[in-house]
Amino acid sequence: MTAPAAPSATDSLLALRELTRRFAAERDWRQFHTPKNLAMALTVEAAELAEHFQWLRTGADAELDDARRTGIRHELADVLLYLVQLADQCGVDLHAAALEKMALNAAKYPADLVRGDARKYDQY
Amino acid sequence: MTAPAAPSATDSLLALRELTRRFAAERDWRQFHTPKNLAMALTVEAAELAEHFQWLRTGADAELDDARRTGIRHELADVLLYLVQLADQCGVDLHAAALEKMALNAAKYPADLVRGDARKYDQY
Amino acid sequence: MTAPAAPSATDSLLALRELTRRFAAERDWRQFHTPKNLAMALTVEAAELAEHFQWLRTGADAELDDARRTGIRHELADVLLYLVQLADQCGVDLHAAALEKMALNAAKYPADLVRGDARKYDQY
Amino acid sequence: MTAPAAPSATDSLLALRELTRRFAAERDWRQFHTPKNLAMALTVEAAELAEHFQWLRTGADAELDDARRTGIRHELADVLLYLVQLADQCGVDLHAAALEKMALNAAKYPADLVRGDARKYDQY
Repeated sequence: MTAPAAPSATDSLLALRELTRRFAAERDWRQFHTPKNLAMALTVEAAELAEHFQWLRTGADAELDDARRTGIRHELADVLLYLVQLADQCGVDLHAAALEKMALNAAKYPADLVRGDARKYDQY
Repeated sequence: MTAPAAPSATDSLLALRELTRRFAAERDWRQFHTPKNLAMALTVEAAELAEHFQWLRTGADAELDDARRTGIRHELADVLLYLVQLADQCGVDLHAAALEKMALNAAKYPADLVRGDARKYDQY
Repeated sequence: MTAPAAPSATDSLLALRELTRRFAAERDWRQFHTPKNLAMALTVEAAELAEHFQWLRTGADAELDDARRTGIRHELADVLLYLVQLADQCGVDLHAAALEKMALNAAKYPADLVRGDARKYDQY
Repeated sequence: MTAPAAPSATDSLLALRELTRRFAAERDWRQFHTPKNLAMALTVEAAELAEHFQWLRTGADAELDDARRTGIRHELADVLLYLVQLADQCGVDLHAAALEKMALNAAKYPADLVRGDARKYDQY
């Protein structure tokens, strides 16, 4: 394994974007990384993450053992890595998009109205 | 592999973690945010993202219209926001986990061996 | 294990296969129904089904209202309809495949060994 | 492995419902089979099915080898088995629900209007 060069960007999402670009380029994998394929891979990784929790009561730390904790950590990483690559292929700045969505959510779910209530917005 | 610089106070993943903590606290939603529930919500958002691409050929920009682009942008954000919250509940540093997983992937898929080939590792 | 009786012409899975074939043919939708696209659509419908349960404690009937019950019923149907179509495109007899998998599961999870324990097979 | 008794119902979906009831009862697994848990397990199995197709062009038979065909067959079965159990826990007759949904779909997507067009209903 050749050591990847230190990422030039210091923000975590930008650094990961750069690392995944280089990783795919070195393997000539960009040809498989259509948005459609990456979106499909993302759902697969999200499900592998969910699988760790499916028969647990809440997934709190006390319900986990070390093998499970490591598996969860790796699947969280896989989801993030595909998400970064999909956003990159779609030309979306993930951080900006998340801030924009948080603002929309704040308007949709006013704190005073929804406190302690998990019903979806469309039921209000 | 050189150690990444310590994230600044304004690192995007840390900033989003802080924002989602405050958002959930203001609405008293932490009670619903068990790791199991967040993992389930994450798979739902990943599927809503995938839904935009399911009948397209590759999902390239030329196949999209503006409504679709906005939808994709919002769903990318939703996946990231649930991912950040799930990692937070599990006590996982997402950036560190992703760097660790990239190193594992580099060892599993040596560039010289897998160039241009999308078969999964277990088939080598 | 005794052989199941041959399904009659009115067996539910065969009847649904026939209905979905006709539905797609009348709309000239077979061109979109590649196995890959149908598999993707199936994960989307499964997630829409899961969405109904994500913030509930167990999803027991007492936690549901009529709108939710109808939504669940429709999403269960959607999952089945895509499953029937995907199996059809793959040339798989769903009933035979399910019986075969039940036999494999019975061997993998002997009742006397796993009674009351939800751990996955690979942990035994 | 003890051979299961021949199912008393001859319709495939009813026969599978009876087999899965007996299988879970013999292992005392009903306690884990809340609708929420079964819905989560269903999304996991649907994703494992999708994983077989994610890097393929269309998933047509010529793109598969025998190991892949067997994997797909088993995952199709797993999805059906969880679907049957979830419908059972929700008191839903899967065949009736699918027929009802087909009728709704026929009204929503009139053949003459949507022929050869995969856009979703809400775009018409």
